[in-house]
Amino acid sequence: MNKLIGNAVIGQSGGPTVAINATLSGVVRGCKECECIKTIYGALYGIEGLLNENFCNLSELLKTEDDHKLLEQTPAAALGSCRKKMPKLGEGKETYDKLLEIFKKYDIRYFFYIGGNDSMDTVYKVSEYMNTQGYEMRVMGVPKTIDCDLCETDHTPGYGSAAKYIATTTKEILADTAVYTVKAVTIIEIMGRDAGWLTCASALPALTGASPDLVYLPEVYFDYDEMYEDIEKAFKKHPNVVIAISEGARLKDGTYVGEGTQSGAVDIFGHKYLSGTGKALEMAIKDHFGCKVRSIELNLPQRCAAHLQSKTDIDESVSIGRYAALTAVNDGETGKMASFVRMEGNEYKITFSTADISKVANAVRQVPREFINERGNNVTKECLEYIAPFIMGECDIKYECGMPKQFEIKK
Amino acid sequence: MNKLIGNAVIGQSGGPTVAINATLSGVVRGCKECECIKTIYGALYGIEGLLNENFCNLSELLKTEDDHKLLEQTPAAALGSCRKKMPKLGEGKETYDKLLEIFKKYDIRYFFYIGGNDSMDTVYKVSEYMNTQGYEMRVMGVPKTIDCDLCETDHTPGYGSAAKYIATTTKEILADTAVYTVKAVTIIEIMGRDAGWLTCASALPALTGASPDLVYLPEVYFDYDEMYEDIEKAFKKHPNVVIAISEGARLKDGTYVGEGTQSGAVDIFGHKYLSGTGKALEMAIKDHFGCKVRSIELNLPQRCAAHLQSKTDIDESVSIGRYAALTAVNDGETGKMASFVRMEGNEYKITFSTADISKVANAVRQVPREFINERGNNVTKECLEYIAPFIMGECDIKYECGMPKQFEIKK
Repeated sequence: MNKLIGNAVIGQSGGPTVAINATLSGVVRGCKECECIKTIYGALYGIEGLLNENFCNLSELLKTEDDHKLLEQTPAAALGSCRKKMPKLGEGKETYDKLLEIFKKYDIRYFFYIGGNDSMDTVYKVSEYMNTQGYEMRVMGVPKTIDCDLCETDHTPGYGSAAKYIATTTKEILADTAVYTVKAVTIIEIMGRDAGWLTCASALPALTGASPDLVYLPEVYFDYDEMYEDIEKAFKKHPNVVIAISEGARLKDGTYVGEGTQSGAVDIFGHKYLSGTGKALEMAIKDHFGCKVRSIELNLPQRCAAHLQSKTDIDESVSIGRYAALTAVNDGETGKMASFVRMEGNEYKITFSTADISKVANAVRQVPREFINERGNNVTKECLEYIAPFIMGECDIKYECGMPKQFEIKK
Repeated sequence: MNKLIGNAVIGQSGGPTVAINATLSGVVRGCKECECIKTIYGALYGIEGLLNENFCNLSELLKTEDDHKLLEQTPAAALGSCRKKMPKLGEGKETYDKLLEIFKKYDIRYFFYIGGNDSMDTVYKVSEYMNTQGYEMRVMGVPKTIDCDLCETDHTPGYGSAAKYIATTTKEILADTAVYTVKAVTIIEIMGRDAGWLTCASALPALTGASPDLVYLPEVYFDYDEMYEDIEKAFKKHPNVVIAISEGARLKDGTYVGEGTQSGAVDIFGHKYLSGTGKALEMAIKDHFGCKVRSIELNLPQRCAAHLQSKTDIDESVSIGRYAALTAVNDGETGKMASFVRMEGNEYKITFSTADISKVANAVRQVPREFINERGNNVTKECLEYIAPFIMGECDIKYECGMPKQFEIKK
């Protein structure tokens, strides 16, 4: 396979995670190992920055192992992000032609885009377009999403750390709510519009002791009357009932549980903005039981609490970035997404592969029904065994003035 | 001073913190050093448990250094808590007589009560009553509150860890919100009904880089029009404006900012339940600017995120517990609250003392006006210098299955 000689550009896209910078570091580590890659550019603010020639020089910014380590413990997207949806192929000729021109101008032969579902749609379109232009280059997607809902990969970089934050915070909330003898319900609202992977993580405290009484995912219809029955049963065991629910939980008629309390606004991909799933439950339960009810929306810290990174997740996130670079250079891979493959056997072990981007873009991998109990109000032991390895290990975070240090790229 | 020979009982009360178990451990450490103390009881669920003879044996439960260390990293109140308000002296003879009877029955000569303002009210009443009964015993309050609003002490155990969580989470949210170029406002709602100490901690990221644009405490009247002006100014600097606000922020007419969106319910101490301060701001700003606005309520993790304990706070929390035990035994102190005294000089150093409980009970120490800027929309450098030492250092947390281990007392 001929190794293309030239420069590389890396972009980050979609919602931030605490592992997307680890993957950025990994891609740079991989590129640095390849002699054929000269300068490694960073596109500031994703594909938007690329189209505006808004670049930084990552070869300069990441010189030492300490630079890499600091970047790897930094949350959010150091390069900045965007939510730009690329035009349909055939419709947006101008945009794509401009992109080609910029690639040529900067002698860019490798384009790595780190992101989730929507970003893979960008990778797909750009690689399809480039295939028809007679300008040889390689376009690789590198997965990132706390939601763990990308297809064609065992799981996603970023999920393990978000899961560790959710499991830990839930365990801490369980301890907090257990101090009083007064009847009370505590609701924890967890991110996840279409897939309940993050909410599954709230059940992980079961591995060491108490866990939420009820766990509701978007994959099974939510029913208020069943919940009231189940809360009643839980009250017979202890006065403090804890419920975890996905923001994307839906009623039988397909509407979101939180829909009543929100505006119906949609984002540019047509996804409904959700908020208030926990609040909706809080009001309903207060009404039904008349007891003290509190709802907690875990909110942004789920995707930015880098102080609680999972070592497994961060190590994997660096490795998959490095793998994407090496496979693009050495194996000539293009139009693919780097992916995790889980090895058979009792011990947790992963290896890397690539997946056809067309099978990944805009598709969603939900929690399989067999990971959810029959009643639809909790997850199974198999589910916990599947996700447990992702949260293992703690990173050696560097602090400054009592707060975690962060790597900063001037934009 | 004669050392009373007999048993000790320790209770925990009020809202949980991540340091109240460290103080419990410290009191037990201190008691163990005193030969005159035979058995160390724990009162389960505070003064309520004491009145129900609901005890555990802490001498048995805390045998090894590992037991102590595990208890010290455990959030919430391992003994359970309560919010019982003791009857007025002279009105609740039955209750107090019962208490005396139980103290005699279990030969209890030392009563340590770890809690906040309301708990110090209990310590005050019990010690006043005991002074008139001819049964020699010592009653000591040990401070605890994330709010840092107790009088007669430089600060309170539990505050440093909550402040570290708030500072870290705010810094992470700042990184997260900075990734997009779209105009947006993010509001962080922080605990604190009457005092803004916790909200001050959100400004600590200023010591290392970016910090919230606007910081509102309950100590200064909140004004919507001034805020709109200040947001406008902030937008000129960057598209992502971050605002931190105390849940207890109040308008000029004395009503809470969040009052419009809550029920008006009060707790048994007559405090109004607050929620929705962030939501109220979110709606107002969305209305005024028409941009994307998100509000984040940091909620319970502020008081239970033990995975991010401040080492300074935990070390001090253990030490003040031990000091309370030793001073009760050796100096015959009673009817007092153990307290922190900050030494003069550039280097941060504290020592211990005792404060008259009558000066502590039901009083609130607010953030002094000189710690807040003239405009009332941020804190001063002096404020940051005052609170910065409290968040220094990280604890060596033990993990199990990827989550922090917790000490459990069967109740």
